[in-house]
Parts: sequence; C-alpha cells; structure tokens
Amino acid sequence: MDYYGASIGRLIEAFRSLPGIGTKSAQRLAFHIISMPEDDVKGIAKAMTEARHNVHFCKCCCTVTDGEICPICAGGESGKRNKRQIMVVENSRDLAAYEKTGRYDGVYHVLHGAISPMLGIGPNDIRLRELMMRLQGPDGECTADEVIIATNSSVEGESTAMYIVKLIRTLELPVKITRIASGVPVGGDIENIDEVTLERALKGRTEL
Amino acid sequence: MDYYGASIGRLIEAFRSLPGIGTKSAQRLAFHIISMPEDDVKGIAKAMTEARHNVHFCKCCCTVTDGEICPICAGGESGKRNKRQIMVVENSRDLAAYEKTGRYDGVYHVLHGAISPMLGIGPNDIRLRELMMRLQGPDGECTADEVIIATNSSVEGESTAMYIVKLIRTLELPVKITRIASGVPVGGDIENIDEVTLERALKGRTEL
Repeated sequence: MDYYGASIGRLIEAFRSLPGIGTKSAQRLAFHIISMPEDDVKGIAKAMTEARHNVHFCKCCCTVTDGEICPICAGGESGKRNKRQIMVVENSRDLAAYEKTGRYDGVYHVLHGAISPMLGIGPNDIRLRELMMRLQGPDGECTADEVIIATNSSVEGESTAMYIVKLIRTLELPVKITRIASGVPVGGDIENIDEVTLERALKGRTEL
Repeated sequence: MDYYGASIGRLIEAFRSLPGIGTKSAQRLAFHIISMPEDDVKGIAKAMTEARHNVHFCKCCCTVTDGEICPICAGGESGKRNKRQIMVVENSRDLAAYEKTGRYDGVYHVLHGAISPMLGIGPNDIRLRELMMRLQGPDGECTADEVIIATNSSVEGESTAMYIVKLIRTLELPVKITRIASGVPVGGDIENIDEVTLERALKGRTEL
C-alpha cells in the first residue's frame, strides 16, 4: 500500500474495513475520492459522522430515525395508521421493504436481529423486551389486536418467531398472532424452487 | 428513503454516489456505519478528508503521493533506481501492480488516463505534456535511455501508446521506445482466449 503514500493507504484500509468491500473495490473507491472536489468529499464525511451521531431508535417501535419517534409511529398516534396492528420485523430495511409495497397501514416493531445461538445472539440481545413492554402497555392492558410476525424464513427467523409466540402465550396477552405466508415467490419458476418452500406453498394453499 | 429518517437517507445517497455501489450496498454500508463505534466512524471520515486534502502528484512522475516527490522517484535521485528507464502507465494502480512484481527497477510516468475520443479525453487531458517536458529535460538534453509504454492493451491504451511514439519521434528524442508484450496470460487456457490475443501471442513469439 506504500505505493500511493500514507494517506491514501489509510483510506484504502478504512474502506476495506467496511462489509462487502475487498482490496480492489477499496482502491477504486479511494482513487475516486481523491479525484472528487474537496467539498463533495467533506459532504460524504459529514453525512457519515452526522448519521452516526443523529441516529436514534424510535422509542415506540425501535426503528432507526432522526427524532424521538418515527414518522410511522407518529402516524399511529394521529390515527392515520392502525397502531393496534403490529408487524414484527428483523431490521429497518425489512420495514422499508414492507413500506414500499404501500399496502400495510399498521405499525411495526423492529427487533434489530434474530435469535441465533450460532452467532451468540440470545433473546436479550434483540429488542424483544421492548416488544413485550409495548404489548402489555403502561396500565397492563394489551395495546394490540394483532401481531404479525414478519421475521425472515431462515432458521434464525423461524426460531425467533416461535420464541415470540411462546412469550406472548406465557404472558397470556389477548392478541391474535399471525405469520406472513411462506411459498412460491411471484415470478418464481417452480422447477427451480427448493423442496422446503414447495412443501410450505402446498401446506399454505388457499381455496379459490 | 424517508423510512429511515433524513440523516441515514443522506448517508445512503452519499454512498450511492460512489462508483460500483448500488442502492442495496449503500443501505448495507449505511447501516454498518450507524452500528459502528462513533470514533471509528470519525476515523473513516477523517481518512477520507485527509487523503483528499493531502494528495499530491509527484512533481517528477505524476503519481499520487503524500510529499513533493514520490518514494520511487526519490529512489531514482539517490541512485537506487534507474531513472533513465521510464515506464509509462495509465494510473497509479498500474504502477502499484508493477511494483508488486518487484522485478522493475526503473522509474514511472503516470498519465492519469488514456486518450479516448469516445469519452472526450484528448491528449491534453492526460499527463502527456509532463512526460515530454520530462524527457526533454531542462537543458533540452534527453533524460532517458528507454521509454517502456505499459498502457492497457485496450483500444484507448493502444492509441495512447501510438500517440506517445508519434510525439517522441516528432521531437526527435534519441530514446529507445518499447511496448510491454501482449499474449497469453500465465495460467490462461488457450481454448478460452480471444483471437486477437492469440494472434498477438503468435506474432510476438520468441526463440527458445
């Protein structure tokens, strides 16, 4: 890395520390940075430190947001969204994916992960306690009519879903618990789809 | 992008403006940044602005470096490297690639691009004038014994090579001009190599 001098070497190392960026990409990015107008570089650096500094977790649903409460939960307060329907997702990107459909008018709860004994992530490492506190409400009355569990359909996502069901049942909360459907994706070629998915698609068939 | 709040939205946009980073990668990077310790984020931001601020072009060979003159040219001055053998490369990464071989002890000249009428890059947009000035020397005496043209073997690289030859001939500089060999790469499967490369490999055959 000395071929380029110390400051570019440091920048290449900094880029390499980010996920999904190898040596070649880090070099390409570093050379792009030094060819950019200085103000633009300062802009990117500022966006980085500001985002890290400003980031908050919505005190209601735990998604990342700028303020105390996220726009979706604020919509729940003002009656624009049904705050008694709570979709539990693994992270804010999953929330965004559902928001993009524009077909969901409930609110969310972001776990920031899934239970994974392999990676050493236990129930206390994700925002499960916050979910239970939220469901129980400040006066002990259940705050929701339905909890839609939308964790991934991976091993971790499924076990997290099971765990949430168990917790809600233990607390005897009078709430409907649902799980998003698992099956053949739209546009998917049946011949290329794995057996587990096909089995689920069959099991979850609906009458026409 | 509003799903995450304005500061994360800005960070995602900032990452998206970099080459080879699409929406999904930008999101992944942004979420990685906000999960990092604040000091590490400041470190990356600083590496960026410092690299941009500190970057200089070696006043001799035009490569990017921290000081006035790059370590390779400094080696030429102190006699460790043969400064009368100049390898012309398109960019500093190509210089680094040759340095990594450890088998070249001459010096370099970095053009920072190649002539490309398609992209609107003419001879004045790359460091050709600097090369000619360097070859002619301050007292008009030729400063090199050999110019090795190591531009890419793309259309742009080849035309740039031709152009350099023409310039040197026009100036009637008493210097040997060579071009790096083009042929079958080591480990390459002949059946998978394109015809132009095979033709060149044949044309450039050497006696054993």
